[in-house]
Amino acid sequence: MIYLTRIEHFNAAHKLFNPDWDFQKNEEVFGKCANDNWHGHNYELYVTVKGEPNPDTGFVFDVKKLGEIIRDQVLEKIDHRNLNVDVDFMKGLMCSTENLAIGIWNELKKYLPQEVVLHCIKLYETPKIYVEYFG
Amino acid sequence: MIYLTRIEHFNAAHKLFNPDWDFQKNEEVFGKCANDNWHGHNYELYVTVKGEPNPDTGFVFDVKKLGEIIRDQVLEKIDHRNLNVDVDFMKGLMCSTENLAIGIWNELKKYLPQEVVLHCIKLYETPKIYVEYFG
Amino acid sequence: MIYLTRIEHFNAAHKLFNPDWDFQKNEEVFGKCANDNWHGHNYELYVTVKGEPNPDTGFVFDVKKLGEIIRDQVLEKIDHRNLNVDVDFMKGLMCSTENLAIGIWNELKKYLPQEVVLHCIKLYETPKIYVEYFG
Amino acid sequence: MIYLTRIEHFNAAHKLFNPDWDFQKNEEVFGKCANDNWHGHNYELYVTVKGEPNPDTGFVFDVKKLGEIIRDQVLEKIDHRNLNVDVDFMKGLMCSTENLAIGIWNELKKYLPQEVVLHCIKLYETPKIYVEYFG
Amino acid sequence: MIYLTRIEHFNAAHKLFNPDWDFQKNEEVFGKCANDNWHGHNYELYVTVKGEPNPDTGFVFDVKKLGEIIRDQVLEKIDHRNLNVDVDFMKGLMCSTENLAIGIWNELKKYLPQEVVLHCIKLYETPKIYVEYFG
Amino acid sequence: MIYLTRIEHFNAAHKLFNPDWDFQKNEEVFGKCANDNWHGHNYELYVTVKGEPNPDTGFVFDVKKLGEIIRDQVLEKIDHRNLNVDVDFMKGLMCSTENLAIGIWNELKKYLPQEVVLHCIKLYETPKIYVEYFG
Repeated sequence: MIYLTRIEHFNAAHKLFNPDWDFQKNEEVFGKCANDNWHGHNYELYVTVKGEPNPDTGFVFDVKKLGEIIRDQVLEKIDHRNLNVDVDFMKGLMCSTENLAIGIWNELKKYLPQEVVLHCIKLYETPKIYVEYFG
Repeated sequence: MIYLTRIEHFNAAHKLFNPDWDFQKNEEVFGKCANDNWHGHNYELYVTVKGEPNPDTGFVFDVKKLGEIIRDQVLEKIDHRNLNVDVDFMKGLMCSTENLAIGIWNELKKYLPQEVVLHCIKLYETPKIYVEYFG
Repeated sequence: MIYLTRIEHFNAAHKLFNPDWDFQKNEEVFGKCANDNWHGHNYELYVTVKGEPNPDTGFVFDVKKLGEIIRDQVLEKIDHRNLNVDVDFMKGLMCSTENLAIGIWNELKKYLPQEVVLHCIKLYETPKIYVEYFG
Repeated sequence: MIYLTRIEHFNAAHKLFNPDWDFQKNEEVFGKCANDNWHGHNYELYVTVKGEPNPDTGFVFDVKKLGEIIRDQVLEKIDHRNLNVDVDFMKGLMCSTENLAIGIWNELKKYLPQEVVLHCIKLYETPKIYVEYFG
Repeated sequence: MIYLTRIEHFNAAHKLFNPDWDFQKNEEVFGKCANDNWHGHNYELYVTVKGEPNPDTGFVFDVKKLGEIIRDQVLEKIDHRNLNVDVDFMKGLMCSTENLAIGIWNELKKYLPQEVVLHCIKLYETPKIYVEYFG
Repeated sequence: MIYLTRIEHFNAAHKLFNPDWDFQKNEEVFGKCANDNWHGHNYELYVTVKGEPNPDTGFVFDVKKLGEIIRDQVLEKIDHRNLNVDVDFMKGLMCSTENLAIGIWNELKKYLPQEVVLHCIKLYETPKIYVEYFG
């Protein structure tokens, strides 16, 4: 078994704000991340798939094709967007890095061909914070 | 002469939108960066000052103090903010990395003590794009 | 299950020296790392916790609080210190990156709230060497 | 159990070309990577071993010795080489990063002393693509 | 005056070999870099242009357009190529990073619009070696 | 004119302590950096030389030879050392990054052949702090 990882980049605006709470509670819990007028990030997205190398190509999966699927099916929906407002698969969810990683997993899984198994979504929100989701 | 650089991090939302143009022209010129609901970035800010080392300390300038001035006088105004909406010194300006670097230079210059000379503001908008301003 | 990682930085002096051996044996085994007058490193510390996101916040754990606990309970004891001399939890142990990672795990575990599970301590000693400890 | 990782660097030429296919099929599948006159990469190699720290040294394994074994037994055969032409352990295999990681695992395993267990070969082909192999 | 830098990535095969010298002299001077069957690198290319920000856009130059020109006019000729064999503008020159940076400068200069001034080509051959050329 | 940079790594212990001041004044000025038992860093050293490429080699200067001179003449004296205690060329000087960069410049200049001109010593003390010295 080989694990193959492709790294892609996107950037987006968001805020952390729970609509069931008043503004003061949101500020207490989320601090500057609750800023009403949004803030944003450069996200680094690591997508790991796994499988056995095909003897004809040496590939677990064509990494260029993997990059295209990530860009066409996921980044197209979130890059240069407002994650709270513009992204269907984040509707009704708190816009944390944790939930964004789960959302990306669910989205990507629909579009990956059967021959390849999604193993991990790793998502850097800042150079000092990342989350990992294994499904 | 020694050049001393302190690197700080902030993140913010913005959009590129010229209010003198209609939406279509903005889209033509700025593409996804004109997204009405904003997008955002992790910015890496490099502040370089210059001078001769003080023989008593070996310092051109106390780099901890430099970090504090950057955080208190500049990042406090732009970190986790909307650069178009929340930042006084960007009012009336296009919210490009170029103009943001000039704005940071002007702001920081007011608060640096006379003993140290500001040499360069270098600002990464993404890991593949940065600008430099020398005043 | 989501894995959340916070990266923090510290620097410290240390040496590799086994007091049960003479100087020559220490030099043979540890080479330049046995230098009597110490050497030092910038360490990069990756702390990974795991859990399910809280629906109210979207967080496995508040990453700012995680950073504070790491800084207040661990870095306060090791940052800008001599790991062999100044650090209670390294007393009587060889001051290797391996033992330092185990020590940080044990220390941090005492101070993390019950709602969160410590998963991994990853510690870079140089940009080319790191260790991981999972308890 | 502690996991210890040593990172080494090498660079090499290669191409992706299946001799059972004609040139057109190779171009279709491998695109620019099939360029007849080769292309090349800077590879970053992460070698992870595991074990319990020796109380006398604090080491799972002497990381300097690990670096030497990697350089003497593996990099000597692949650094500044043509992976398709110059490397015995890649003969008859497609020259993908997947197969190269497996080849490095097999080679390194022969030369690691019994006291240490090889855990993972991680290999970056570009800053955006890596594979992992756990044997 | 603002300096704007765009970073792009390419990879290529090359060797260092002076055809006026015999094989032994080439080995003496260039060591492993003279390997007859080539080796290769991931190159990081920093292109810096300078000018005054346009008040309508805030841009010295549209950085997306800059990226397109670099990719279409330069990377198209060198990415996934053999620099000694496949690249017209390196013909008759030693294939060093120094000469490659000068070649990229000359090539790019032809295709940049008059409104923008090329300031610097910075080229990383490995993570530990780079050159800069200012024309 | 081409500028060629070689990056090398070393690590060392030091403290910031002015012997003309009492302990309290040292603590006020240098904070944790005055810790009596030392602390330490991984330093990244960038050495830039300049010149015109030699047509026979394409080199401003042989970058392998540059690396050897840096390691043999400079790193040998400071790597895995105590900068305050073990290093002749820092005797009597405050052990700041500024003074260390000047010391490295002076040392290296003695050992570089006449055919190459030293242009800059750039020295990272932490990933967020560096100094540059141009002689």
